[in-house]
Amino acid sequence: MDSVKSYIKEHKQRFLDELVELLKIPSVSADNAFKKDVLLTADFVLESLKKAGCDSVELCETDGYPIIYGEKIINKDLPTVLVYGHYDVQPADPIELWTSPPFEPVIKKTEIHPEGAIFARGACDDKGQMYMHVKAFEYMIASGNLPCNVKFMIEGEEEVGSVNLSAFVTKNQEKLKNDVIIISDTGMIANDIPSITTGLRGLSYVEVEVTGPNRDLHSGLYGGAVANPINILSKMIASLHDEDNHITIPGFYDAVQELSTEERAEMAKAPFSLEEYKKSIAIDDVHGEKGFSTNERNSIRPTLDVNGIWGGYIGEGAKTVIASKAYAKISMRLVPNQDWKVITELFKNHFENIAPKSVKVKVTPHHGGQGYVTPIDNIAYQAASEAYETTFGKTPIPQRSGGSIPIVALFEKELKSKTILMGFGLNSDAIHSPNEHFGVWNYLKGIETIPHFYANFAKLSL
Amino acid sequence: MDSVKSYIKEHKQRFLDELVELLKIPSVSADNAFKKDVLLTADFVLESLKKAGCDSVELCETDGYPIIYGEKIINKDLPTVLVYGHYDVQPADPIELWTSPPFEPVIKKTEIHPEGAIFARGACDDKGQMYMHVKAFEYMIASGNLPCNVKFMIEGEEEVGSVNLSAFVTKNQEKLKNDVIIISDTGMIANDIPSITTGLRGLSYVEVEVTGPNRDLHSGLYGGAVANPINILSKMIASLHDEDNHITIPGFYDAVQELSTEERAEMAKAPFSLEEYKKSIAIDDVHGEKGFSTNERNSIRPTLDVNGIWGGYIGEGAKTVIASKAYAKISMRLVPNQDWKVITELFKNHFENIAPKSVKVKVTPHHGGQGYVTPIDNIAYQAASEAYETTFGKTPIPQRSGGSIPIVALFEKELKSKTILMGFGLNSDAIHSPNEHFGVWNYLKGIETIPHFYANFAKLSL
Repeated sequence: MDSVKSYIKEHKQRFLDELVELLKIPSVSADNAFKKDVLLTADFVLESLKKAGCDSVELCETDGYPIIYGEKIINKDLPTVLVYGHYDVQPADPIELWTSPPFEPVIKKTEIHPEGAIFARGACDDKGQMYMHVKAFEYMIASGNLPCNVKFMIEGEEEVGSVNLSAFVTKNQEKLKNDVIIISDTGMIANDIPSITTGLRGLSYVEVEVTGPNRDLHSGLYGGAVANPINILSKMIASLHDEDNHITIPGFYDAVQELSTEERAEMAKAPFSLEEYKKSIAIDDVHGEKGFSTNERNSIRPTLDVNGIWGGYIGEGAKTVIASKAYAKISMRLVPNQDWKVITELFKNHFENIAPKSVKVKVTPHHGGQGYVTPIDNIAYQAASEAYETTFGKTPIPQRSGGSIPIVALFEKELKSKTILMGFGLNSDAIHSPNEHFGVWNYLKGIETIPHFYANFAKLSL
Repeated sequence: MDSVKSYIKEHKQRFLDELVELLKIPSVSADNAFKKDVLLTADFVLESLKKAGCDSVELCETDGYPIIYGEKIINKDLPTVLVYGHYDVQPADPIELWTSPPFEPVIKKTEIHPEGAIFARGACDDKGQMYMHVKAFEYMIASGNLPCNVKFMIEGEEEVGSVNLSAFVTKNQEKLKNDVIIISDTGMIANDIPSITTGLRGLSYVEVEVTGPNRDLHSGLYGGAVANPINILSKMIASLHDEDNHITIPGFYDAVQELSTEERAEMAKAPFSLEEYKKSIAIDDVHGEKGFSTNERNSIRPTLDVNGIWGGYIGEGAKTVIASKAYAKISMRLVPNQDWKVITELFKNHFENIAPKSVKVKVTPHHGGQGYVTPIDNIAYQAASEAYETTFGKTPIPQRSGGSIPIVALFEKELKSKTILMGFGLNSDAIHSPNEHFGVWNYLKGIETIPHFYANFAKLSL
């Protein structure tokens, strides 16, 4: 199948131009200010699927942002691949840290991306990786190389917890029926070290509010005599980890799946340089749960991080005030077997219990999802592995990721099919951060690899 | 001297109208966005002193906002009173908690102020209380009742630490020469329980910055393996108090002046209801240093409060990010003998020392000032006490305040004169908070009481 290489060569510029257009639309699902843009992005995706060759495409309304569905059924007896992706993106702030505007894509060369990388919010997560599938599909149609049926399900609420997708999936099991689900919303170790993500962490995201006095107070007249909500919140947050950085919420680790020594030894074989790691984010030391390596801490272990905190006077200069309220957004990454609803409840009860009588505490769950582990002994994984071998010239390493795609566990539950996570991004692509980017090489390599997966999967399914 | 009462009665409406005009100008010294308004306020004060009867008024330029100086010298052999006040105000935020716009003054009746109170930022702190002196002076001139020389020094940087006033005072010792300084920038216990503030706390205000990774990170890919600056900052803040709410900074209490059992017993006599106190700010329990009463905690004991904290994603919805930086504004209220510069240094060293290797910490001192205790066995205090007796019909209670007027200690050092703190506001006036207000009754009672102080002081000085 060399034709895919020449097809990409021929259409490379158009593939890039189309992605740039898609990236120009600020589809930030977390912020209602961008509602119009998110909807525009949905239309863009719908049109692109139509143009690429889907027989039928639909904009499926939900209680939130629409889900774009498209399909190409060539033969009921052939296997069906379901492609999932999302067209919404993370908020861009802190804007001031971007070297170019987040929604004005530019291609710049970097040390890791000598052929250039597209800088824009969503370049890698997930517009760029989602669009690889649309272009790979376009190629297979154009070249008459589509070996099986395809269904696309592209949503607009992944960054806010896929709140409406789950209902959609449950309601449309027949329509979404498939033999394998492929998702490109993860990364690989390096351009010369391909890897396939075999595990994802679950997530529980909550917001807490601590209320002291009913109004902001003068810190001189009241200071020392009244509970300061910021000091109290800090104490409460601090108490959530012990000196070994274990999480102190009672029952938090009960369901955690401990890996065997063999599994941990296997993991430890993945190429990793602690010095490189520290250098890449300019830290003098790593920090985490005692008894686990950096790669274990961010993949097979659950975590608790404050994602945002605010309270009191945060403007210029000084204000001597005791705030009435303090807030924090807190997320916990969970490992397989930890149920996010159970963990959310454990957090809520614990956080309310540790609050002193001098303040009132409110815990509001935002969203969450279960973790997932994909087996590597099935034809779907084999098809993917061989596709990478063909295009990268190396067998990909199976790797557990610390990220979360809450919907994956639901797919297995509702659609009874396995998901293969074919990610072509890199950790250094700064997803969720300022200056997010996606290598041009990676984008094109993804488009090249995907058709091989289809071919292998169809062959192995016979 | 009944004429003051009738003069006030006659000019009451004008006194109120003039104050309202002054309060309409948003002179927020902490925020450069208001620079023009702060300067307009300086002009307003200058004009008002001229109109009230000063022989000479000057706008004294500084490296920051100007100091307004005005004087009326009637006889070199008579004693001289120096009036200090400030025309700048605290920031108004959180704006959304104001029931009427902070710079559109309105007079509303309240439970404590049946004759109405003026609601506006600065109504009590300090425009209203400063302007009482201008109007009392106007009366004494108009009625030929001025018994001594008067000097006014009204600054525009009190809310940001009087950074330039100290230099001005040091440079102008001869010009500012006086026999007593009076300031109305504090409060009293209640309208039927007059009190004179005999002590002020010092202040050290710092800003801290905790830096982890050099960019915001995805909390899934990095969570658990990298120090989260917000979690670390929370832990560091939490560690600044022990379980008895003692401050843990080494050496922090070394210079603290402990009160004798007798002094504490004397303090305890001041009327106070813990239930009323809790009800007034809607808290279920007080919170503070073990072994001290609420009134001791907020007056004779030093404190440490976080006045503001921010970091990470604080917008709508959820963002799964590990922030690169987290910040806090922290202030410490100090008691007499604690040197604010020493304490600031102790804090800086301690805070930098407790930072783990996984983050970088920066501590930036904002400003500070020394505490102050005024003796009650001198003619100035006697003159004030008798003035209150005349107008309130009760002997005022000497009371230590938890607030800070950093410049007072400097006055004593540079000008060798004592300061009398004649405050007519109430704790419930919500200074530094949304809906700050100042009772119309208190405003007029202040104007009535001040001339009596002048008369008593002149008489006692003979």
